[in-house]
Amino acid sequence: MASAQLSPFAPAKYPQMPAIAGVRLATAQAGIKYQGRTDLLLAMFEPAAGVAGVFTRSRCAAAPVDWCRSILAAGKAAALVVNSGNANAFTGMKGHAATRASAEAAARAVGCRPEAVFLASTGVIGEPLDPAPFAAHLADMAGRAAPDGFLDAASAIMTTDTFPKMATRTARIGGKSVTINGIAKGSGMIAPDMATMLAFIFTDAAIAPQPLQKALAKAVRGSFNAITVDGDTSTSDTVLLFATGAATSRGVPEITKPGGRALVGFQAALDDLCRDLAQQVVKDGEGASKFAEINVTGAISAASAKKIALSVANSPLVKTALAGEDANWGRVVMAVGKAGEPADRDRISIHFGPHRVAFEGERDADYSEAELSRYMKAAEITIGIDLGLKSGKATVWTCDLTRGYIAINADYRS
Amino acid sequence: MASAQLSPFAPAKYPQMPAIAGVRLATAQAGIKYQGRTDLLLAMFEPAAGVAGVFTRSRCAAAPVDWCRSILAAGKAAALVVNSGNANAFTGMKGHAATRASAEAAARAVGCRPEAVFLASTGVIGEPLDPAPFAAHLADMAGRAAPDGFLDAASAIMTTDTFPKMATRTARIGGKSVTINGIAKGSGMIAPDMATMLAFIFTDAAIAPQPLQKALAKAVRGSFNAITVDGDTSTSDTVLLFATGAATSRGVPEITKPGGRALVGFQAALDDLCRDLAQQVVKDGEGASKFAEINVTGAISAASAKKIALSVANSPLVKTALAGEDANWGRVVMAVGKAGEPADRDRISIHFGPHRVAFEGERDADYSEAELSRYMKAAEITIGIDLGLKSGKATVWTCDLTRGYIAINADYRS
Repeated sequence: MASAQLSPFAPAKYPQMPAIAGVRLATAQAGIKYQGRTDLLLAMFEPAAGVAGVFTRSRCAAAPVDWCRSILAAGKAAALVVNSGNANAFTGMKGHAATRASAEAAARAVGCRPEAVFLASTGVIGEPLDPAPFAAHLADMAGRAAPDGFLDAASAIMTTDTFPKMATRTARIGGKSVTINGIAKGSGMIAPDMATMLAFIFTDAAIAPQPLQKALAKAVRGSFNAITVDGDTSTSDTVLLFATGAATSRGVPEITKPGGRALVGFQAALDDLCRDLAQQVVKDGEGASKFAEINVTGAISAASAKKIALSVANSPLVKTALAGEDANWGRVVMAVGKAGEPADRDRISIHFGPHRVAFEGERDADYSEAELSRYMKAAEITIGIDLGLKSGKATVWTCDLTRGYIAINADYRS
Repeated sequence: MASAQLSPFAPAKYPQMPAIAGVRLATAQAGIKYQGRTDLLLAMFEPAAGVAGVFTRSRCAAAPVDWCRSILAAGKAAALVVNSGNANAFTGMKGHAATRASAEAAARAVGCRPEAVFLASTGVIGEPLDPAPFAAHLADMAGRAAPDGFLDAASAIMTTDTFPKMATRTARIGGKSVTINGIAKGSGMIAPDMATMLAFIFTDAAIAPQPLQKALAKAVRGSFNAITVDGDTSTSDTVLLFATGAATSRGVPEITKPGGRALVGFQAALDDLCRDLAQQVVKDGEGASKFAEINVTGAISAASAKKIALSVANSPLVKTALAGEDANWGRVVMAVGKAGEPADRDRISIHFGPHRVAFEGERDADYSEAELSRYMKAAEITIGIDLGLKSGKATVWTCDLTRGYIAINADYRS
């Protein structure tokens, strides 16, 4: 779609994405909703890849989420098909028929069972999705799929995103290198609950389903589940991690059990890649002009700290204050107070970047309003909240709330 | 303060507020923060009135809230002092000293114990409140306090409000009439949790502390606790109900126990008055151009229905769709799904006003987009959500999210 003005956080240069052995990609202009841009992505895995996934906790999950959940247990993926422009959510039996038809079309094109085709859709909720464009394009796409093309892939899945989101890392397993590539989309309807919007991660490592799922679940906690743009949780949130295992041909050992030492480096790289993608989603938050990290320490537990951090990160009054470059720590106090978690007003201290603005329940007499105002002009702001109770801590990332968010969302559907 | 543009819902005519026997009012320009407008209210009760109160559940409650909670058990009020411009919240020991000094100044002016003086403050959080202006003005105010002046009282407590909020009702007790007057302020930082911002209600009925508190708690549930502007809960939320008992001189019987038949009419009038005031707060929501009623039916319980209704009412994407006059029921589905309450996607139906847009988990094929678009242009919109599970229901009120909200909040403090 004709997107809003480019995010001020759009990268000056996209990362160089290497090929992942065992993965081929193709995109197409299927005309699902948008004209003059790609809106369909096919990723093929030869041989079939191991796969792990986490999905929205929405009670109104979209049909493709239901489909992926039903086939995930088998743990093998021959293809991934993603469309933008229509979420195929709240589409009843028609939605289920559309996922089945799309999977069958991809299976014919790729030469696999429909149950080895993972699906994701993003865009408008509630419009029936016509599967005909899938059938029309997938055979051709399978024929021309190629190992490179991650930038095209990341672009094809965008909706209100203003830039494609990609990250790549390497990790060592058994003394040899493996690669992890990830792409993501998301800009609005972003709130952490299992996964946020769509992200697809590919590696040539060989990792069995159980350790793969555990690695993904851990990575998501500190990344996609630690961001918010507007507190609205999508019906379509999906993060899928595909492990082709092609690296075994280079002598990289297969990992069959979770928790082993062999996975330590991979987990660290996966965590870092997921955090990178998740932060890109926030930095492309609808209308965002500021990126903020909220660090809560001294809470009674990590869960309590995260609830407080999200209360601050989701507060419209905190987010508009960020937009106004106003170090309005009173609103931070309000948001801590409304979280409903244990907090003792008279022990709270608050920092904006290096500036301590509140201490032991009242304004810090020593802070300089002039220095603070200068700090608030930065594009990236850190808010530190210490509750002074125990050692529970959490970090979440958010953006500001601007006129741009209103402009983008007051007429998306029409 | 120089407020934003007048709300489109500002009443063309304010209600005529009768005097309440036993209540006298005065306002003053104390210069606490604003210039050229009143910012201090004194209400005097002679003899001392019975009093009930509900307060914010914020863990960072303001000093005046702590003060009121500590004196409420005694159940007698000789005075109420309210200032705007400074919330005296997150002000540590200084805040407690300021409440004490203010209560003492009022006690001297009125001739009562400080513990019979109820206090409320609204405005900026975190700035120390200087009690000197209270001492300077209260003696004079006590001298000129008069039975009328509810419009002046409602005006003196405004912050970002664009119009003063008042309502009056009569009820019959023992075959004789009593009067209930209420004033409220609130426009942003509005989310229901016990009480929302400030509301003060006055009656000449004679009602003992226990039934008075019960009556107020019930009235608040379906009014101040059923509204939201931005999901942000204030540190200062306070609703106080004062019963002077002056009506006994006209033969109105005193009510000493909760739950009796004598209170039925009063409760109905109090419920109605609180709903009226609460809806005025939403209609003056910061930047509001639309007022929306969210009706949830068919939930597994009333509590579940309310959680779902608030999820819809607080969703930035639903609220921006209202601003854009877009019947984007897909976002309603999203907000139902994220509430985390039991819901079966394939049983949900959704109405915008009389138009059924979704039925049994998918778009209603029969609705007319043209008629729906016409409906969305109305200033007051009703969204009905039937979950098709059990008989739990709830109604909440909200407003849209517009550029006006951003404009008002991106530089309030500076």
